Amino acid sequence: MNEALFTANNVWMLVATVLVFVMHLGFSALEAGFVRRKNTVNILFKNAMIIAIGLLTYFTCGFNFMYPGAGGDAVTAILPGFLESSGLGLFVPEDPGITYADGAYAFWTDFIFQAMFAATAATIVSGAVAERIKLNSFLLFAAIFVAIFYPITGFWKWGGGWLDKAGFYDFAGSTLVHAMGGAAALAAVIVLGPRSGKYLRNGIKPIPGHSMPLAAIGVFLLWFGWFGFNGGSVLSADPVMVSLVFVTTSLAAAAGAVAAFFTAQFMFKTHDLSMVLNGILGGLVGITAGADLMSPLEAILIGAIAGVIIPLSVVFFDKTLKIDDPVGATSVHLVCGIWGTLAVGIFGSSAGLGQLWTQLYGTLSVCAFSFITAFGLMYLIKVTMGVRVTESEEERGLDLAEHDMHAYESASEESAYNMAVK
Amino acid sequence: MNEALFTANNVWMLVATVLVFVMHLGFSALEAGFVRRKNTVNILFKNAMIIAIGLLTYFTCGFNFMYPGAGGDAVTAILPGFLESSGLGLFVPEDPGITYADGAYAFWTDFIFQAMFAATAATIVSGAVAERIKLNSFLLFAAIFVAIFYPITGFWKWGGGWLDKAGFYDFAGSTLVHAMGGAAALAAVIVLGPRSGKYLRNGIKPIPGHSMPLAAIGVFLLWFGWFGFNGGSVLSADPVMVSLVFVTTSLAAAAGAVAAFFTAQFMFKTHDLSMVLNGILGGLVGITAGADLMSPLEAILIGAIAGVIIPLSVVFFDKTLKIDDPVGATSVHLVCGIWGTLAVGIFGSSAGLGQLWTQLYGTLSVCAFSFITAFGLMYLIKVTMGVRVTESEEERGLDLAEHDMHAYESASEESAYNMAVK
Amino acid sequence: MNEALFTANNVWMLVATVLVFVMHLGFSALEAGFVRRKNTVNILFKNAMIIAIGLLTYFTCGFNFMYPGAGGDAVTAILPGFLESSGLGLFVPEDPGITYADGAYAFWTDFIFQAMFAATAATIVSGAVAERIKLNSFLLFAAIFVAIFYPITGFWKWGGGWLDKAGFYDFAGSTLVHAMGGAAALAAVIVLGPRSGKYLRNGIKPIPGHSMPLAAIGVFLLWFGWFGFNGGSVLSADPVMVSLVFVTTSLAAAAGAVAAFFTAQFMFKTHDLSMVLNGILGGLVGITAGADLMSPLEAILIGAIAGVIIPLSVVFFDKTLKIDDPVGATSVHLVCGIWGTLAVGIFGSSAGLGQLWTQLYGTLSVCAFSFITAFGLMYLIKVTMGVRVTESEEERGLDLAEHDMHAYESASEESAYNMAVK
Repeated sequence: MNEALFTANNVWMLVATVLVFVMHLGFSALEAGFVRRKNTVNILFKNAMIIAIGLLTYFTCGFNFMYPGAGGDAVTAILPGFLESSGLGLFVPEDPGITYADGAYAFWTDFIFQAMFAATAATIVSGAVAERIKLNSFLLFAAIFVAIFYPITGFWKWGGGWLDKAGFYDFAGSTLVHAMGGAAALAAVIVLGPRSGKYLRNGIKPIPGHSMPLAAIGVFLLWFGWFGFNGGSVLSADPVMVSLVFVTTSLAAAAGAVAAFFTAQFMFKTHDLSMVLNGILGGLVGITAGADLMSPLEAILIGAIAGVIIPLSVVFFDKTLKIDDPVGATSVHLVCGIWGTLAVGIFGSSAGLGQLWTQLYGTLSVCAFSFITAFGLMYLIKVTMGVRVTESEEERGLDLAEHDMHAYESASEESAYNMAVK
Repeated sequence: MNEALFTANNVWMLVATVLVFVMHLGFSALEAGFVRRKNTVNILFKNAMIIAIGLLTYFTCGFNFMYPGAGGDAVTAILPGFLESSGLGLFVPEDPGITYADGAYAFWTDFIFQAMFAATAATIVSGAVAERIKLNSFLLFAAIFVAIFYPITGFWKWGGGWLDKAGFYDFAGSTLVHAMGGAAALAAVIVLGPRSGKYLRNGIKPIPGHSMPLAAIGVFLLWFGWFGFNGGSVLSADPVMVSLVFVTTSLAAAAGAVAAFFTAQFMFKTHDLSMVLNGILGGLVGITAGADLMSPLEAILIGAIAGVIIPLSVVFFDKTLKIDDPVGATSVHLVCGIWGTLAVGIFGSSAGLGQLWTQLYGTLSVCAFSFITAFGLMYLIKVTMGVRVTESEEERGLDLAEHDMHAYESASEESAYNMAVK
Repeated sequence: MNEALFTANNVWMLVATVLVFVMHLGFSALEAGFVRRKNTVNILFKNAMIIAIGLLTYFTCGFNFMYPGAGGDAVTAILPGFLESSGLGLFVPEDPGITYADGAYAFWTDFIFQAMFAATAATIVSGAVAERIKLNSFLLFAAIFVAIFYPITGFWKWGGGWLDKAGFYDFAGSTLVHAMGGAAALAAVIVLGPRSGKYLRNGIKPIPGHSMPLAAIGVFLLWFGWFGFNGGSVLSADPVMVSLVFVTTSLAAAAGAVAAFFTAQFMFKTHDLSMVLNGILGGLVGITAGADLMSPLEAILIGAIAGVIIPLSVVFFDKTLKIDDPVGATSVHLVCGIWGTLAVGIFGSSAGLGQLWTQLYGTLSVCAFSFITAFGLMYLIKVTMGVRVTESEEERGLDLAEHDMHAYESASEESAYNMAVK
């Protein structure tokens, strides 16, 4: 590889990094839109802290744990890479420069692209536990989750661990990021319990979000960022591969929207914006595992099935299981993440029964690991520092209880203020 | 061309694709900001569906219709390319790979960049018909518009049809995207009629939008995306050409803002934010036809004239013609689109009476085609499934009527909810 | 340098330009979020105009003043470059093409990247003077500031003037953009005075912003854009340098957030979202002067110190000095800008007492120049056209007073409107 090609590849990876970064804004806006006014500051605060904590912990240990080098024995293949890692503090090669022959981008590009990914998994949890979790408890959970749990399963596949050796395929993280985050979200919600006022004796009370524009902005920005999430996972600027990934990613998102539109119309007899938005996200999560293996038509199928799954799954979790997940994170990230991982065994150039079986136990292993460790950690936090705000705090809203401020100046406050000034 | 240069070109085209994608968020925010609270979910829903439908239909047939190959006889030069296209389903070359000698980017890059453009034209319509059109009727209209009408006129020029042969110039779509969409918007508004309560016996009632921050965010994002819209239309990363296009595009937008500022101040004796925002968009639409042909000074002139046009045109449509267009789409896209197309004959390296004449009949042909087909299609939908919600639905707002939900939790709802919980 | 490498470099510089552009949206959202509802249109209006005015004045004279060529005598080294510039109107080289040997990007890329920077400095002022400044007075101030003052100090360092010759280091503008803008903001606030109702006989009244989601969106977008602001300041796509800058920039922002979190928790016993958001910005401003010189660990230290500074500085300005700065611009841009500039003498590959001394007098010179000229200009405007709206205009809000419109349709307006329609 010559300098010019290396530079072009690296430029693309940096652009992809920036796009993945903006997904954190996407999540912030989406989650803020789907909670009530009185919990808006809280969710924004959590999301601003998650990206900060995620970057710092991934620098301190996550990156080393996930990519520890060429370990190969049974323990390091299944246990996290930190058994053989260079310990705390980012291990920087003596010359973090470039060797054109070695790869498609510089060392620091590698680190920062991966670091942007790491915080995503924790962000997925934050939406599901919104409106009743204690702030400090959540931040502690998120820090440990990003610093240790995420790199462990990440190592299993992307770090060259046992799933990688087994032939498991997960292009950009349907399992390693999304199902991983979704399973942790499910565990956290179970430990935490539903929002007060949600499941009443006389039925289930829908609690609509407070701002659909914020939610829609969030979804568009997530789609925007997904071009980097999937497109950057090519790990070079290979023109055919990256452009194909753009096409499969876009078409899956589009098919997710249309399929969710029709499914929701059939189920609810109305045009449900949340379902279409989550349908887009479901399609994106679904295509992520095999975005580089699918033809456009297969991408449309995968996205469409994800779009059908979304309303079914949301209703199943909400009404049947009584899992209270304000943003639908389990349906979008866990269910569609598993679906997308399995789809690699069904569609595309890797399809086959053997592959399907590997995809199945691969994704279930990661989900089980994530669920169990997240459950244990959440439970430990619950019995020590507590995970849930008091009922009166929940009623007043976390913005007042945890942050002593309002998200908005309401029109009435404006008038009251003006009168007070007079 | 070598691999490195090809890769660098392709990276730029992919970045441009991402930027054009984000224009759909820009349109969503802009249109949402300019409608009333009660129709906000509806406009967001439409915009999320348009990009989905646009991508899928462009994949299914639009791309094939627009670029059918090397047709040359009279029929295929004027009629759509589908007479000689490969039919439904994207025609993928046997090897959608790269041939460095052939072009500046991969096949899939070509498709996805063009696909992002296609949905834009339909989005322009959605703002103009906001607050009273039936959702399903609009989506059907948009699907047919993007699948068939847009590729036909696109083929006329960019597919190598009769306008291309005639020497018509439209760099990035002042006519083929903006005036095309704007003419369809005008036709749709005429079929649909004004919003109830707008034109009263005793005068014209201004109906301000519900969120200026959303509108401003939308305009900034559109400008942001326009760097890809115009910059990507160079169809390579040619350093001089793309950077010149960045300069002309930015300066035209800036001049549009300043000219609209002064014109609106003179006309309305106040500092009208909508006019400045639409002035920016007018400048951007205006420069689009010749962004690669103009000097910076000429770009400023073109943008400034667009900025003067905006308030005049908005008043003319609103007060004189009584065309009720909530977002000013006809003024921004149709009028400034025609202006920008003509400007290619007046300013820049292609200026000349012959060119001006070609620009004139070119843009009028496209506008006429778009207006007539959109009018016919809208009318057909009107007499079959209906295009307009009932008066009581319009009064309650489309969010409740079509989506059974509110866009926002208001402060009073928050209080009421809290009281109900107690 | 060959064509492919040149093209890759130029692509990166164009992407960086687009990212810096989007910072203007970031500032708009941040400032809009931090003001009251009744002044929202006004702040959006100012920000839309600033980028327009900034681009046009930088084209007309700013660029020439800042980069006048190879001047070297005492006068042109300290006085602005316009003494030897090519006068009004952008001086375009006869062939604004590319010479692969000369640099890493095309002439127009150079201009537009720098032009995006220029308007930033004025935007910093706009937040500090929000909610009581006269619109036209501010726009006049901003135009002169961007056209003349910013290029003068820019020339001192980046144009090859006396600070450059003295060995002063400012990679991407901790001093030349941020402290420069912050010092002008401070001067403007002093001339202008605090908002009415802020400093009362019986204490200081906090005036919270009207929309935390807008503020948070703004900060995320600023961080997003900072990848271009700092990453583009490498002035090429050098893989190691740009990726290192990405890492230092991100880690400083993250450390700023975490440090502000703990400092604010200690000081205010609550989780203060504004402090965390400003902590992110403080970290970003702080790392900007030496983003290319620091190790990741040093970047974390610099960011963390900035994050500690933010709450201390905000309280100091607000409570001790009684400087009323609604968005904290002086703390973020002036104080952290100075801190970041000094940090180049303390940390990183250039650290040393000599360098620290140069950094100190360099940043103080720029701040003093900016403060004095901004104070003088503001004062001149005050005694001629006036700088402050009347007390009754301030009370009604600038949206009504200056723009005759509301930023939002409130829920009550919606009801009232609907009733009126009936």
